Amino acid sequence: MENDSQQKPFKRVALISRHTSPAITETLTALVKYLDDVDVDVVVDFDTARNFPSNALPTVQAKQLSEYCDLLLVVGGDGSLLQAAHIAIEQDLPILGINRGRLGFLTDILPDHLSQIGEVLAGEYQEEKRFLLTSSVHSIENDALNDIVLMRGDVARMLEFDIYINEQFMCNQRADGLIIATPTGSTAYALSGGGPILHPKLDAIVIVPMFPHTLTSRPIVIDGDSVIDIAISPRDETLPMLAHDGRLHVPVSAKDQVSIRKKTQLLRLIHPIDYNYFQTLQSKLYWERKNNGLNLTLAPQQS
Amino acid sequence: MENDSQQKPFKRVALISRHTSPAITETLTALVKYLDDVDVDVVVDFDTARNFPSNALPTVQAKQLSEYCDLLLVVGGDGSLLQAAHIAIEQDLPILGINRGRLGFLTDILPDHLSQIGEVLAGEYQEEKRFLLTSSVHSIENDALNDIVLMRGDVARMLEFDIYINEQFMCNQRADGLIIATPTGSTAYALSGGGPILHPKLDAIVIVPMFPHTLTSRPIVIDGDSVIDIAISPRDETLPMLAHDGRLHVPVSAKDQVSIRKKTQLLRLIHPIDYNYFQTLQSKLYWERKNNGLNLTLAPQQS
Amino acid sequence: MENDSQQKPFKRVALISRHTSPAITETLTALVKYLDDVDVDVVVDFDTARNFPSNALPTVQAKQLSEYCDLLLVVGGDGSLLQAAHIAIEQDLPILGINRGRLGFLTDILPDHLSQIGEVLAGEYQEEKRFLLTSSVHSIENDALNDIVLMRGDVARMLEFDIYINEQFMCNQRADGLIIATPTGSTAYALSGGGPILHPKLDAIVIVPMFPHTLTSRPIVIDGDSVIDIAISPRDETLPMLAHDGRLHVPVSAKDQVSIRKKTQLLRLIHPIDYNYFQTLQSKLYWERKNNGLNLTLAPQQS
Amino acid sequence: MENDSQQKPFKRVALISRHTSPAITETLTALVKYLDDVDVDVVVDFDTARNFPSNALPTVQAKQLSEYCDLLLVVGGDGSLLQAAHIAIEQDLPILGINRGRLGFLTDILPDHLSQIGEVLAGEYQEEKRFLLTSSVHSIENDALNDIVLMRGDVARMLEFDIYINEQFMCNQRADGLIIATPTGSTAYALSGGGPILHPKLDAIVIVPMFPHTLTSRPIVIDGDSVIDIAISPRDETLPMLAHDGRLHVPVSAKDQVSIRKKTQLLRLIHPIDYNYFQTLQSKLYWERKNNGLNLTLAPQQS
Repeated sequence: MENDSQQKPFKRVALISRHTSPAITETLTALVKYLDDVDVDVVVDFDTARNFPSNALPTVQAKQLSEYCDLLLVVGGDGSLLQAAHIAIEQDLPILGINRGRLGFLTDILPDHLSQIGEVLAGEYQEEKRFLLTSSVHSIENDALNDIVLMRGDVARMLEFDIYINEQFMCNQRADGLIIATPTGSTAYALSGGGPILHPKLDAIVIVPMFPHTLTSRPIVIDGDSVIDIAISPRDETLPMLAHDGRLHVPVSAKDQVSIRKKTQLLRLIHPIDYNYFQTLQSKLYWERKNNGLNLTLAPQQS
Repeated sequence: MENDSQQKPFKRVALISRHTSPAITETLTALVKYLDDVDVDVVVDFDTARNFPSNALPTVQAKQLSEYCDLLLVVGGDGSLLQAAHIAIEQDLPILGINRGRLGFLTDILPDHLSQIGEVLAGEYQEEKRFLLTSSVHSIENDALNDIVLMRGDVARMLEFDIYINEQFMCNQRADGLIIATPTGSTAYALSGGGPILHPKLDAIVIVPMFPHTLTSRPIVIDGDSVIDIAISPRDETLPMLAHDGRLHVPVSAKDQVSIRKKTQLLRLIHPIDYNYFQTLQSKLYWERKNNGLNLTLAPQQS
Repeated sequence: MENDSQQKPFKRVALISRHTSPAITETLTALVKYLDDVDVDVVVDFDTARNFPSNALPTVQAKQLSEYCDLLLVVGGDGSLLQAAHIAIEQDLPILGINRGRLGFLTDILPDHLSQIGEVLAGEYQEEKRFLLTSSVHSIENDALNDIVLMRGDVARMLEFDIYINEQFMCNQRADGLIIATPTGSTAYALSGGGPILHPKLDAIVIVPMFPHTLTSRPIVIDGDSVIDIAISPRDETLPMLAHDGRLHVPVSAKDQVSIRKKTQLLRLIHPIDYNYFQTLQSKLYWERKNNGLNLTLAPQQS
Repeated sequence: MENDSQQKPFKRVALISRHTSPAITETLTALVKYLDDVDVDVVVDFDTARNFPSNALPTVQAKQLSEYCDLLLVVGGDGSLLQAAHIAIEQDLPILGINRGRLGFLTDILPDHLSQIGEVLAGEYQEEKRFLLTSSVHSIENDALNDIVLMRGDVARMLEFDIYINEQFMCNQRADGLIIATPTGSTAYALSGGGPILHPKLDAIVIVPMFPHTLTSRPIVIDGDSVIDIAISPRDETLPMLAHDGRLHVPVSAKDQVSIRKKTQLLRLIHPIDYNYFQTLQSKLYWERKNNGLNLTLAPQQS
């Protein structure tokens, strides 16, 4: 994370919103006015354009945004940012989330904090790299920022599969499914399945079994450069599916092999300059945030 | 892990055993005979020497072993290896464990598998680096290969402390204590407290809360280079202690600050050439080890 | 449990097997011979009859078995007994399980322990009452001995529903689903979801949330006479289903209400005279069964 | 729970407070004034009397309160009520908790809700019976309303013990300790150890292992009339202790036997007439309390 110096300011911004509602129109309109005031150019994609009754903004294809902007500004919750992340990563655009409701894990700014947005645009921000996972089944590839989940199609039966890590057999599992999550996704679905929190700076992947038949199955954290292969049992009749960030369901079959690994391109996630991951955890998980006001004596660095 | 080529053979071995029993004497005697047969020099430290009724072996101080040997051969379980690890790391000696009972996480060879020991001595082995944690309280430092555990002295009260990661405040906790574990220790005490398994190759530390008052407290995995500071509440009356690998109890007090970080020196842990971490997990955790015999198609490496 | 005196012997037995295989034919044939030797009449239903190449046994409709026998003898695992339990309970027949593989939670006897079967038939047995759950949706009722599970049909979305206990609102949940289990089912699917073990003698029901969105959701144990109502959210688009013992899937819809309560009729489960529930737990869960051989001093009964 | 009719009003009340502070004095003084206004007699014990600068109230021994009052009114949190419960149960006095901070599991009324207190005194209340546990070691008995916890004295070693339920051997455990909790205590310490919630109406006890060496150890719920015997290993060197509601520490030794069972006398816990256990859970555990406003169709009662 580069957070100790002034970054390059953003002069051209694309507004992205996946939903349509009067409230979102209101937020977008206020943002457009503010951006105009601070002399930042604005562009929208065709989906987002529907939010403006009479649209005087330049409107372009989502896949061509990088030609017209140097920052994606997503209005919505973590789910909206998850989707926009695919646009961002393919065009190597940084992305910033403005959350209209409660702050999310990925969306750090409230829409009425316009001055905070102004600071980011002026170059006062942190840029954090987050990695995605790519699944490969029959040479078809799909990405996920949070998690890739193998699950049963037919819920009447238990799924059976073998897991290999870097070509080493790890175990055979009968279970409802399997969650493979990034640090970003460790606080999403994987957490409700008993997985640990992975700090976003950690280069690691967590594998969380879902209702495993073997009671001693546990979440396991492996190096971020590992390749995970899942071989569906030849006897499988459950018509399993592979979900990517809770969407993009790809069917897999008996004897199929699923390969999951880190995607080469990284997401450039923008945070306000005073962003602190632990404050997000405290807020989202109702952690105790009142410390004892001790003067922490900083340990000298190890030589 | 360097496991694809022939390593340097071991010509001088130190036998280490922390317990004394007729069975251990029998194992040690058989080992001495075998090592003599294969022309490997043997030395023991004074503690281990007590296992030989009439000792004709060279006997030296534990702290001078590196002058007389190039491998520590520990006879015992994981607990014995944990203790001998401190001798090994201070003298930069590799260490191999011979388990008289059921195989352990750290002790990979059964004493009647003499040929497997012979292969290791001849240079057919894997050398794996495992890191330790060092705690620092009032400039007193102590090491642990598995875990450092903060716990209450007076069990009638709840411990309260603040946790900082790399000087960032993470949370305030009221709990029975806190486990800080290495990947090596993730399958020991931390696992019984609900922590995840960390693959030994992973450069990470896991923090596991013990009976936390806040129900949403969860194990968190952070980068192995992180510095963890724990500030005991000024109101604390529980006379807390810091345990290192379940031993070496250091008292801490109200307002004390504990610093925990990775130790610079690494442990050189020796495994047989066919060692596989997942087989150890399968054996120790009763995992299903029968795979479906699929021909795993190996994914081409990412460019 | 009535286990301290001689029970009424069984003179007429129905053999039940839901699978067909040479191994099951072999076991059934050996049982028929043994039962003939000890002068016990044997009958089979039409499904089971297919296991005998040339069948000289009286063969009747499954629903008329009670006219021809006074015990159901199920050959198979816990899954087979779960299915036969529905025949048993409707005709008020006791049921005994003979497990061809590893002993199960419900199937206590190995097929080569013919003398143990002989003892049961002669009246040396324990009879235990186990209760079932009944679900009611749109006046359609279905039973389960282990569990009733509400689950998503469309895995792309999260299910939302309200839970009421005895007409009191308990909570609103967004989750993958909900497990409602009997003590019998507490060691099946509910256990892999983090539920507690309920002793079979306990008159209680456990509700286990599946991957709940609210991290403080916990398994809750309520009185066995409670009525559980689940109201599916009017916004639901997941096409949820209700599974009974992992089978019998009943679709439910947005705004539907599911009522779950104890079934009036009880299952009469037969165990060998020396059956001990904790021994089953020890065996199935790999618990430490070696005690310290202490002479337990029995506490005088409280007046 | 008797909640559908008018109860006998309370005419004589004892105020109980275990702490001394200006804020408590203020609350007590307001209560005395209010009780005088509504013509209810007030008495205090000697401990509580210290809160009044000039005390004109009748002051008696805690153990003689039942001669002078027919209700204990505890001012404080759940911890205060836990302690006063022992006075209440020995004299068969009902008890009501007034919580000066956030509402607790046992303390239902805020001090400024004087009219709610008035309603209770006038006979508008629910009386709920809660059971306690009694431990017996060497014929010394001690009670607990929440939980009895067996724990290590010397934290350097693991505790080993055998558990018997109704004289049947359940398992041998090596662990940090063992929690035995009532339904009342299931939402206290046992919950932070992974135990389930037991509804207060349930006649059951939950046993929760603390950091068990055997990974498949799970919380187990047994009938409330069960007798639990714990036999400490003859090899034990940990100087274990038995805590009752987090207080009253009784030392136990190697070979000692601890017997735990339900206490015969029940606690009479008073709630406001509109008390609802699930609302307490929603509040304390941050559960979603907004239901979908469905008209729940009540199922006809089973015949």
